[in-house]
Amino acid sequence: MTDRPKTPVLDRVTLPSDLKALSDRELHQLADELRAETISAVSVTGGHLGAGLGVVELTVALHAVFDTPRDKIIWDVGHQCYPHKILTGRRDRIRTLRMGGGLAGFTKRAESPYDPFGAGHSSTSISAALGFAMARELGGDPGDAIAVIGDGAMSAGMAFEALNNAGHLGKRLIVILNDNEMSIAPPVGALSSYLTRLYAGGPFQELKAAAKNAVGLLPDALQEGARRAKEMLKGMAVGGTLFEELGFSYVGPVDGHDLDLLLPLLRTVKARASGPILIHAVTKKGKGYAPAEEAADRGHATGKFDVLTGVQAKAKSNAPSYTSVFAKALIDEAGRDDKIVAITAAMPDGTGLKQFAERFPRRCFDVGIAEQHAVTFAAGLAAGGMKPFCAIYSTFLQRGYDQVVHDVAVQGLPVRFAIDRAGLVGQDGPTHSGAYDVAFLANLPGFVVMAAADEAELKHMVATAVAHESGPIAFRFPRGEGTGVEMPERGEVLPIGKGRMIAEGKGVAILSFGTRLTEVMAAREALTAKGITPTIADARFAKPLDRDLILKLAADHDALITIEEGAVGGFGSHVAQLLADEGVFDRGLRFRSMVLPDFFVDHDSPVAMYDTSSLSAPHIVRKVLEVMGIEDLSSRRA
Amino acid sequence: MTDRPKTPVLDRVTLPSDLKALSDRELHQLADELRAETISAVSVTGGHLGAGLGVVELTVALHAVFDTPRDKIIWDVGHQCYPHKILTGRRDRIRTLRMGGGLAGFTKRAESPYDPFGAGHSSTSISAALGFAMARELGGDPGDAIAVIGDGAMSAGMAFEALNNAGHLGKRLIVILNDNEMSIAPPVGALSSYLTRLYAGGPFQELKAAAKNAVGLLPDALQEGARRAKEMLKGMAVGGTLFEELGFSYVGPVDGHDLDLLLPLLRTVKARASGPILIHAVTKKGKGYAPAEEAADRGHATGKFDVLTGVQAKAKSNAPSYTSVFAKALIDEAGRDDKIVAITAAMPDGTGLKQFAERFPRRCFDVGIAEQHAVTFAAGLAAGGMKPFCAIYSTFLQRGYDQVVHDVAVQGLPVRFAIDRAGLVGQDGPTHSGAYDVAFLANLPGFVVMAAADEAELKHMVATAVAHESGPIAFRFPRGEGTGVEMPERGEVLPIGKGRMIAEGKGVAILSFGTRLTEVMAAREALTAKGITPTIADARFAKPLDRDLILKLAADHDALITIEEGAVGGFGSHVAQLLADEGVFDRGLRFRSMVLPDFFVDHDSPVAMYDTSSLSAPHIVRKVLEVMGIEDLSSRRA
Repeated sequence: MTDRPKTPVLDRVTLPSDLKALSDRELHQLADELRAETISAVSVTGGHLGAGLGVVELTVALHAVFDTPRDKIIWDVGHQCYPHKILTGRRDRIRTLRMGGGLAGFTKRAESPYDPFGAGHSSTSISAALGFAMARELGGDPGDAIAVIGDGAMSAGMAFEALNNAGHLGKRLIVILNDNEMSIAPPVGALSSYLTRLYAGGPFQELKAAAKNAVGLLPDALQEGARRAKEMLKGMAVGGTLFEELGFSYVGPVDGHDLDLLLPLLRTVKARASGPILIHAVTKKGKGYAPAEEAADRGHATGKFDVLTGVQAKAKSNAPSYTSVFAKALIDEAGRDDKIVAITAAMPDGTGLKQFAERFPRRCFDVGIAEQHAVTFAAGLAAGGMKPFCAIYSTFLQRGYDQVVHDVAVQGLPVRFAIDRAGLVGQDGPTHSGAYDVAFLANLPGFVVMAAADEAELKHMVATAVAHESGPIAFRFPRGEGTGVEMPERGEVLPIGKGRMIAEGKGVAILSFGTRLTEVMAAREALTAKGITPTIADARFAKPLDRDLILKLAADHDALITIEEGAVGGFGSHVAQLLADEGVFDRGLRFRSMVLPDFFVDHDSPVAMYDTSSLSAPHIVRKVLEVMGIEDLSSRRA
Repeated sequence: MTDRPKTPVLDRVTLPSDLKALSDRELHQLADELRAETISAVSVTGGHLGAGLGVVELTVALHAVFDTPRDKIIWDVGHQCYPHKILTGRRDRIRTLRMGGGLAGFTKRAESPYDPFGAGHSSTSISAALGFAMARELGGDPGDAIAVIGDGAMSAGMAFEALNNAGHLGKRLIVILNDNEMSIAPPVGALSSYLTRLYAGGPFQELKAAAKNAVGLLPDALQEGARRAKEMLKGMAVGGTLFEELGFSYVGPVDGHDLDLLLPLLRTVKARASGPILIHAVTKKGKGYAPAEEAADRGHATGKFDVLTGVQAKAKSNAPSYTSVFAKALIDEAGRDDKIVAITAAMPDGTGLKQFAERFPRRCFDVGIAEQHAVTFAAGLAAGGMKPFCAIYSTFLQRGYDQVVHDVAVQGLPVRFAIDRAGLVGQDGPTHSGAYDVAFLANLPGFVVMAAADEAELKHMVATAVAHESGPIAFRFPRGEGTGVEMPERGEVLPIGKGRMIAEGKGVAILSFGTRLTEVMAAREALTAKGITPTIADARFAKPLDRDLILKLAADHDALITIEEGAVGGFGSHVAQLLADEGVFDRGLRFRSMVLPDFFVDHDSPVAMYDTSSLSAPHIVRKVLEVMGIEDLSSRRA
């Protein structure tokens, strides 16, 4: 790019240790340059922009004051880490963010010693930091542990559990609450109102004055006893009883963009903190870049864009996204059935439920980042006579797994799970892969587990879930666009546990579960050209299995191959169990189960990730040839 | 039993509606009789005693004031529900508690309309109650929703998530915090200290006076405007800012054993509450039964006992429990390796870590009921250079599943999971079944998953886990006693991914994973008498699989049967995947995988539960005969 920003101070920084040589004035300039560099980089790569811009000053201040990587900064979620990556030896690769082979979009231990703990999901940072802190106390790695966590992430129960434990243990631990009143969506919940009340009194000005004085005092203060520093900290605390009740010293709220405040404050904390301390920093998501500041989501995630105008390069869209098909289908159904309610855990946009909430505000619940509560709340709604749709990404449903088992499945309550982002998700990488949901749901007694092969199927599955009142039901669908099939006027209620025949053939049958069906059909075309015509079926259900269909496919073919966008233990394993129980293997069946591989697939485009996973059309072709004992010379690549 | 207590008032109560005819004076007597009846019943059945005794007065007051089952009382965990069961039409079966075919030891929807939401795991009640409350607001079932939750359960993040959401929604919802300073073990954490501070000021006396006045006022107060009642409630609130900050009205602390206080308070709440309200009731676990009050665990769970003396009938013990073998083995190892630390989520007794904590107090962490935090805290400790052993029951590990995936597995951190209560657990029933851990762990890349076949194996696996530094490792073992094998002086480090041959045979091979090995050996004896001598192997590892062993067993036998104490998707499914990948099915193999059945197995003795699950020696015999095509006339029972 020719118009990269001029960054004379940043150019002198390769590692955080280089910040020690900079004056406070130079640190101010560094922050400005770091912001410009972040904007420039994300304009090329796309990615999470707003969060990083909100912590530019915090990033500079933390690296200037603390001694990373000996001291450990743990960025919650990790999507705000781009400025941190720029300062920690990764500037030369910052324009490869989220690209295949490039830097991860989150912190990642394997990438740098400056990333002591990776993330992707929210609300883990305090637990991890407490682990580092206690390891230090017991002779493990030395250094401070500093968790930087957003106000949205703080609403998750896990963060509360960690605060509760940290307050009890009482050891030195630094938590910076990065309060931007905005996670991905505006935060909800009583904690959020509480935080707003904390800074409603506008104590910034007095704090600023106090801190300015402190700057002058500091060289002395650092050499004096604890008394003066403690008084200063105490004087700055103007609220935060909730945190104090949990055993933390509370400092704030402070303006998280004011280095004149942050630097002396962090220096004092570093010099004096003896127990757990929470610094409440108020920041602005998207800070310093007008197009982000003005966006509804504060530039949370963006495609590539023009730096001057902020206009994003639009990807050309061939078909509606699965998410929007789900949302529209649910709105349709809810217009006809006033018992339908919807639940999201802080993802109204990502799940499409924002549209639902606009149409049915009373019937949509955004519970915050709180998947455990979301699931059991849905179970309570179901027990109270409603038809709840719990819309949670596959990867985040892992957070509510015990509730799925204990509150939904054991009680047989008709909670409907709309599982978005099932399968490989692309740039967010392995922390967000929807790889395990079929394995962890399909062995729960009484559960119905479906996967949509295309967007029309998804619409049918929403209708099927509405109609299914006798127990829990889940339907999974991937990230991204549908296949462009014609959409039905209205979703049909599918017969539970019945698959569908897609194409008759002979010799080998492929039984697909989910959207790999497109690749399967492409493979069939390629195979037909070689004189092999597989039978293709869409299982629709991993539970209950279509016993008749599966046994017929096994009986009528020499080989049966299952394929799914999930790990072993899921659909293919249930098919294998059925075939074993029925004695089908006794007489020989060339059975194969194509599943996600036994390694974490690094971030890349979804197409490339499926290729890495050997789940694309060429791999299906090869698997068919292999199982039929035909050597495929064309597949022998260098 | 001849010496049942005299219960003239209780004898007039069949259902809660019968309480409406009783005077407050009679309700006092009812409470005394209910306590005596509860003690008498549990003396016969064993079970959770202390918790129920702590809520006798609350149970009476709630049923006297509210209109159950229209109003819904949701008992958190549910182990305190025996008095509730006695008052809700189940007195005639109360002496079948936790027995096969008898009443469940927890609340259970299928058992009674007075159990609107079942439980077993903690901290779900507020979420469920909020679901009922919002269903009511949207035209679902009418009535009040009342969650009764202990202070220990309140430390779980899930409860915080629910409070946060309920405070935000602002609808009428009643939460009773049953604060007995004691969950199973003494509670830990900053929240607990906070609660203690709330009642440290001893406001009982003033509250009692206020309430006594209120009793006189009530008939009028009920007919007056909201003003007076609100003032009364307000006057009673002496603390609780933490809850108020989350949007709840806070009332308390009140003496939860004083009906003169509880009855008017609940009547006022019922008449006047408009939003979420939290009533902080202080109770005594084991209240009114000296042997329970004086026990260290306040009579949390007990075997059958003599009512007069409290002396429990001791079950005769043949071998050490798996739990104690684990604890002793870990203590041994920790004596040699000071990097070993242990983590429990509020189960120091159940996991055996109490012994560890006595020996190594600084190296043992009880984080409270907080499995999510426990797992990520352990991951942080591992990243900080320690060797953490995270000891969590299989069923409770479900609560930390996302953390296992995201913080441990994706990062490949060497956290050691000691999974107790794996498999069927007996009287606690389906909510506590350890059925899913192998399925949800063995498909995580890089995980090592072991199961101990006996207590000597368990000792080896502890040593193996200590030595395994390259990634996460889990070992599972069941509830109850070992098999009585000779114990090795010291645990051996097992080769990762290698099983062991137990007995050579021919025709059919049985590959066992875990403690079903004992039943497998019994089956072998029975089969040998019929002229069939199966080969027996112990897999030890579900991941990585012992590929050589499995392929050899498949090659050398006509039939291969796997058996495990887990659901489909686990060990047997991984073996099937290997056999399919290797083309073993192509040429025919009589393969069967014996797993837990596809229904929730009701509470009973473990032996009976495994029998119901078709996983005992006779079922193995039958499976072998079936797979070999031999009809077993002896198994045809009426």
